[in-house]
Amino acid sequence: MLIRFITTGGTIDKVYFDALSQFEVGDSPLRQMLTEGLVEFEYDVVPMLQKDSLEMTDEDRQQLRDFIAADDADRYVITHGTDTMPQTAEMLTDMPGQTIVLTGALTPARFRTTDAVFNVGMAVAAVQVCQPGVYIAMNGQVFPAGAVRKNRDENRFEEV
Amino acid sequence: MLIRFITTGGTIDKVYFDALSQFEVGDSPLRQMLTEGLVEFEYDVVPMLQKDSLEMTDEDRQQLRDFIAADDADRYVITHGTDTMPQTAEMLTDMPGQTIVLTGALTPARFRTTDAVFNVGMAVAAVQVCQPGVYIAMNGQVFPAGAVRKNRDENRFEEV
Amino acid sequence: MLIRFITTGGTIDKVYFDALSQFEVGDSPLRQMLTEGLVEFEYDVVPMLQKDSLEMTDEDRQQLRDFIAADDADRYVITHGTDTMPQTAEMLTDMPGQTIVLTGALTPARFRTTDAVFNVGMAVAAVQVCQPGVYIAMNGQVFPAGAVRKNRDENRFEEV
Amino acid sequence: MLIRFITTGGTIDKVYFDALSQFEVGDSPLRQMLTEGLVEFEYDVVPMLQKDSLEMTDEDRQQLRDFIAADDADRYVITHGTDTMPQTAEMLTDMPGQTIVLTGALTPARFRTTDAVFNVGMAVAAVQVCQPGVYIAMNGQVFPAGAVRKNRDENRFEEV
Repeated sequence: MLIRFITTGGTIDKVYFDALSQFEVGDSPLRQMLTEGLVEFEYDVVPMLQKDSLEMTDEDRQQLRDFIAADDADRYVITHGTDTMPQTAEMLTDMPGQTIVLTGALTPARFRTTDAVFNVGMAVAAVQVCQPGVYIAMNGQVFPAGAVRKNRDENRFEEV
Repeated sequence: MLIRFITTGGTIDKVYFDALSQFEVGDSPLRQMLTEGLVEFEYDVVPMLQKDSLEMTDEDRQQLRDFIAADDADRYVITHGTDTMPQTAEMLTDMPGQTIVLTGALTPARFRTTDAVFNVGMAVAAVQVCQPGVYIAMNGQVFPAGAVRKNRDENRFEEV
Repeated sequence: MLIRFITTGGTIDKVYFDALSQFEVGDSPLRQMLTEGLVEFEYDVVPMLQKDSLEMTDEDRQQLRDFIAADDADRYVITHGTDTMPQTAEMLTDMPGQTIVLTGALTPARFRTTDAVFNVGMAVAAVQVCQPGVYIAMNGQVFPAGAVRKNRDENRFEEV
Repeated sequence: MLIRFITTGGTIDKVYFDALSQFEVGDSPLRQMLTEGLVEFEYDVVPMLQKDSLEMTDEDRQQLRDFIAADDADRYVITHGTDTMPQTAEMLTDMPGQTIVLTGALTPARFRTTDAVFNVGMAVAAVQVCQPGVYIAMNGQVFPAGAVRKNRDENRFEEV
């Protein structure tokens, strides 16, 4: 089993730059989470974007779709900012034979208390068990694309 | 969706008692992991045993099976010691309509670096996506019961 | 022995607000660090400001000095942003009989990898061992006020 | 300023070996703690023993004393098991010109919640600020050798 991870930025990847007293998207800590998860499957990581998902454009989403459509893997886990994760998920539907799971985090993975590791664990299980299609793994749940939104007031994902 | 968690002990639950300079099975940190995972589904936790899985007996396994057979939930995640997890999984097969996922950890959940959170995330996703049956979620993989063993020399789970 | 802690904000206290995708000064995690340090001395915590130290004014510093001058404790640990920590330290000198140690962090205390806990441990030891006066505990070193600056390019404190 | 660290084992260094379901003294995580503390002073680490301090013998203590007596540094931080830390401290007294601080932890440094980092921070501050002599830094306090014991029932250090 090969899982291809694609990182696009978002809260999960945020780091703190003291020089600027700012918090920005940095290198993805995904490999470290997979190492800690003691995963034994074959995988690679494709760093595609480093963006807050509010800044992600339709061109960015098309680029992601084109990449996967032309690619040869069956299973993709995409780490993504939470604000527009549902839109990106919908843009990736109808690619037969491929299982795609988007996940991210409401707190950066570099925090001591974070949902990032739990979420990546969920995504890794979902991508190998789900039928081909597009899913979002957040808040302990695996949602099909098109049936999920982020409730910004409550800061959580929920069924539409 | 309701997920019922059953804790049985194992490395995942180990704590360190300085008074004895010993390391023993303690209260399960499962609720804390679910809180950090920001899960939004309904769940409860049934603490059943606090054992190293090498000390688990066939009576213990029968008790676990009887409990689930008589119980009314559809989805179970069982945290369990790793050494005999495959045996327990096989003892729980053939219960129609119920999805059961066993998981645990090779390093205690209370460690700074641990596979526990990743594994519980995997189990939570698998139990809601898999067909009814019994599975083990370890080392980044979801194995069906009966098709997995722990390779003690390599300290990992692998397909039989 | 009583140690009075005063929190003023700075990187050490920063939290991440996903709703805004921003990182701001929040409640101080100081009590949690002291609990983890298993401290057995008497202490209290006075939350005075929640500011980036670049925004700290001379009025703020005067308020801090007035508070300590009128107060009855002998030992103070002040958590503070790093950028202007040396200025605040100099403003607090010449208060006979009181030992004051300023500390903070280059990475927020809520991060998984942070200098915050180490620094607070240093400050707690220094405040009980040093002669009356004002000190900065950062980067593994205890500097007297007036003899230390933050090297912003190297992101560390050093002797003047 | 040079600080020489000597590691002797104890709870602070404990690791978990799943293969044996046991918890044993392992390589010291001291360097990692110093790295996280962003220390900027010169230091080296001398690994001398890997023992529970209950197993430490008077020969071990003599070896430690002889090493320091013949050595050329002025400041030593010794990580040590907690049960006999006070005895070792007393064995090291009366070495003129050298400041020695013993510390350790009641919970292993590899745990997510541990007093180890705080304690090492305290020791590093104490060793550069204290007069020559021997001290123990535990539970948020710096005790002179000979005036401190471990209260095993309460699992903490206290003044004699």
